[in-house]
Amino acid sequence: MSSIRSIKRALISVSDKTGVVEFAQSLTDLGVEILSTGGTAKLLMENNISVTEVSQHTGFPEMMDGRIKTLHPKIHGGILARRGQDDSTMQQHDIHPIDLIVVNLYPFEATVAKDDCKLVDAIENIDIGGPTMLRAAAKNHNDVVVIVEPEDYQVVLQQLSEQQGTDYNLRYRLAWKTFAHTAKYDAAISNYLGARLSADQQSGEQVADEYPESYSVQYKKVQTMRYGENPHQTAAFYQALNPWEASVATATQWQGKELSFNNVADTDAALECVKLFAEPACVIVKHANPCGVAIGENILQAYQNAFQTDPTSAFGGIIAFNRELDHDTAKAIIEKQFVEVIIAPSVSERAKSIVATKGNVRLLSSGQWQQAQPDWDYKKVNGGLLIQQRDLGMISANDLKIVTEIKPSEQQIKDLLFCWKVAKCVKSNAIVYAKNLQTIGVGAGQMSRVYSAKIAGIKAADEGLQVKGSVMASDAFFPFRDGIDAAAQAGISAIIQPGGSMRDQEVIDAANEHGMAMVFTSMRHFKH
Amino acid sequence: MSSIRSIKRALISVSDKTGVVEFAQSLTDLGVEILSTGGTAKLLMENNISVTEVSQHTGFPEMMDGRIKTLHPKIHGGILARRGQDDSTMQQHDIHPIDLIVVNLYPFEATVAKDDCKLVDAIENIDIGGPTMLRAAAKNHNDVVVIVEPEDYQVVLQQLSEQQGTDYNLRYRLAWKTFAHTAKYDAAISNYLGARLSADQQSGEQVADEYPESYSVQYKKVQTMRYGENPHQTAAFYQALNPWEASVATATQWQGKELSFNNVADTDAALECVKLFAEPACVIVKHANPCGVAIGENILQAYQNAFQTDPTSAFGGIIAFNRELDHDTAKAIIEKQFVEVIIAPSVSERAKSIVATKGNVRLLSSGQWQQAQPDWDYKKVNGGLLIQQRDLGMISANDLKIVTEIKPSEQQIKDLLFCWKVAKCVKSNAIVYAKNLQTIGVGAGQMSRVYSAKIAGIKAADEGLQVKGSVMASDAFFPFRDGIDAAAQAGISAIIQPGGSMRDQEVIDAANEHGMAMVFTSMRHFKH
Repeated sequence: MSSIRSIKRALISVSDKTGVVEFAQSLTDLGVEILSTGGTAKLLMENNISVTEVSQHTGFPEMMDGRIKTLHPKIHGGILARRGQDDSTMQQHDIHPIDLIVVNLYPFEATVAKDDCKLVDAIENIDIGGPTMLRAAAKNHNDVVVIVEPEDYQVVLQQLSEQQGTDYNLRYRLAWKTFAHTAKYDAAISNYLGARLSADQQSGEQVADEYPESYSVQYKKVQTMRYGENPHQTAAFYQALNPWEASVATATQWQGKELSFNNVADTDAALECVKLFAEPACVIVKHANPCGVAIGENILQAYQNAFQTDPTSAFGGIIAFNRELDHDTAKAIIEKQFVEVIIAPSVSERAKSIVATKGNVRLLSSGQWQQAQPDWDYKKVNGGLLIQQRDLGMISANDLKIVTEIKPSEQQIKDLLFCWKVAKCVKSNAIVYAKNLQTIGVGAGQMSRVYSAKIAGIKAADEGLQVKGSVMASDAFFPFRDGIDAAAQAGISAIIQPGGSMRDQEVIDAANEHGMAMVFTSMRHFKH
Repeated sequence: MSSIRSIKRALISVSDKTGVVEFAQSLTDLGVEILSTGGTAKLLMENNISVTEVSQHTGFPEMMDGRIKTLHPKIHGGILARRGQDDSTMQQHDIHPIDLIVVNLYPFEATVAKDDCKLVDAIENIDIGGPTMLRAAAKNHNDVVVIVEPEDYQVVLQQLSEQQGTDYNLRYRLAWKTFAHTAKYDAAISNYLGARLSADQQSGEQVADEYPESYSVQYKKVQTMRYGENPHQTAAFYQALNPWEASVATATQWQGKELSFNNVADTDAALECVKLFAEPACVIVKHANPCGVAIGENILQAYQNAFQTDPTSAFGGIIAFNRELDHDTAKAIIEKQFVEVIIAPSVSERAKSIVATKGNVRLLSSGQWQQAQPDWDYKKVNGGLLIQQRDLGMISANDLKIVTEIKPSEQQIKDLLFCWKVAKCVKSNAIVYAKNLQTIGVGAGQMSRVYSAKIAGIKAADEGLQVKGSVMASDAFFPFRDGIDAAAQAGISAIIQPGGSMRDQEVIDAANEHGMAMVFTSMRHFKH
């Protein structure tokens, strides 16, 4: 039996009316009978399209303010009947096949996103008939076409006009899309209801908790990757359903090899770090950590200074900018180093042509970002998932509490704030040395803070960078004075850290002894 | 109006028959009329419970091999009618209220989990009528009770007997649970169908890809946490729906403060590392990295050796064992150091009483684990999600390729394999020094490999540990000979690493020059 299925009868009931009149008109022109309900029926009739009301088709009235419209065997028998196999059953019960279902659902997510949404409004926006028709049609995709989004009108019309029916692959794809849609819909309902479950069922209060009792989420695939973090692991990259912010997940790739798993992770780290700066900035990331960061008059200067911090690590690194990638900067990179990925909000045509001389380099533009939006951050553990708010915390000069006898100078304040932003992006324990808006040494990922401080100093010395006069940032407080002593020995003149240790006074005393300035942020930035 | 709702009529249609006979009997004893279908009706009647068949209730026959049974206004009007408001509509159309829905769904997930499951079997196991009744009842939870799992029979019966009806909080909670269930159900269907979408719709083949076009997943909450990775971030801990393996997510906490976000992450890191060893072993984790690992005759010896690697970092650490925590080991820990979490497959009563002397210490038992199971690992990026297979790769002595003139001794092979397992658990770039099944230095999280090697050496020297005669593991290949030269200078005698660098020959030559043994694993273990 051919897999092509013709359409004699369609049921259309949509809350998103985009293009529905034109679509229904085209179906009518092809001789398709149209069943419809409520607002959709009214709109089509106003446009002189002939419509049979569902209540007329079933012989059963719409009732209970629309709660019962389509939940009837004449509708669902018409959708679910296996053509060929159930034909006599249909005839016996006067059921007519319905070959196309066009439904989208009451807008539950949009309803509950409103600040003043009450539980009763949310409940009323839970669609029952719609998902049932969608799911029935998707189950019976062997014989029935289901459309859940206006964007699929065109392909269905095209197949109807070209081959007088739809083919199996199209019906299968639309069936998958439908179940993805109903899964997402019920996920939103369950997250909403689950967030309002009071821990104390006795109180009679439904307290909203931002973490629902069950957490359901859906992502859409961008690409299956060649492999994951290592070649023996498979992997894929998924995008949020409604990406709200320019990011690696929304970026356009202009040239180069396909992004690998580690490329995506490192590009995210680099881009999210460079977004923290208002002035022209460059961040170079290697193995998930910034290995060089700088602010400059322009991004060329920023790149040159960032590169200087650690040229060894920058080899094969990921480079992010917060300004359009221009010709001169692109040229400087290509001439100076092997680079895996370059990303910027935009890329000039001349920069593209320069990078094109190295065909393997992955060149991306993210688009211009606006203010960072709240989102969930995950940490996967075996058998479970930690979910937390994305770390959007950031302090400004006014939040700094000067705790030492010596006050930081204006330039030191600038360097301290620069350095603090970098430390936020370095894996804990993080210690960053900086001077003149350039990183001098980055001490990342150590199990004790004093070693991060040592590493920052060793790296600076190895690259011939002058630590004397630099400032230091620590992502969390110093538990002991040893980190301060090590910094003083290296030549650090000012320190930024959260404070809050039991031994803060010992640490402050150490800074005073060494004649250093120190400021507290009262905000920690662990990142593991 | 009181929120208590009595039950006059119930519809029961379950695929999981656990306890359903007793439950229906109890309802009957309370005077509830029971509607049912198919296998459930048959079972209840066999047990002398009076049942009205749904087809009798609706006056419409079951048809199309059960595809159409309950999709009828007499059923759904009876569920969805707003009591009080829609009473006259019900009377007019001879619709009788249904106050309790007991439904569980065709076992879609179990069906597709079978190796020989065909698409047509999967499709036939997509339930349409069941989810519709569940969703309708959950929407109308103001008046209707919905039960989707046998475990909720008891609480409903209890409320019926104690207060002649169910209260709002119970109905709300069961409604939430129902939508969580239907979300999970459609997620499974959409993942299944989405994994079989061919990239090439033209080929007519539905190729299975383990990464579906849309990825839907659900977790259940274990606890809302005081805060996340940092105090200004909120957080919660979620568990997989069917945890398949002893893990931090399934562990029992015997005493101590509530687990924090970082506790859970670090306990996972420690436990998953110690699971890699067959012999009695101890892993101490700080800031997501092992700072000391050892194998011993028993776990006491393993702990003492692991602690020796880096006592500074071990302070406030997380300690994991792969044998029952005994009295002597517990005592040694409590006397020696401040510890945040201790986890082991089990904990002896005497060990519990020792740890009880430090009330804040979080003491956990994970249960005994079996072989590690495949699972997904996530890395969250802004606007998207990287998904990969969990890194279950592991080599044995037979997989090692000896590439140097000098062959490693038997003891060196043991140390190399030990060291390799530790390196797998250390953040990249990872370099680990070890001797006699004890870590001597751990170089973690550096942007260039040579610094990880340097740090391992510095840490060993600082703790007065002899590097001479130690072996070294590197989680990825050495891009240049500098890491080998640094290791030789530190006194390393044998090296394990994946190999695969363009400069492998240069690296092998360096090892030969220094008189070192070196083996290749051909498997990389990046972990960022």
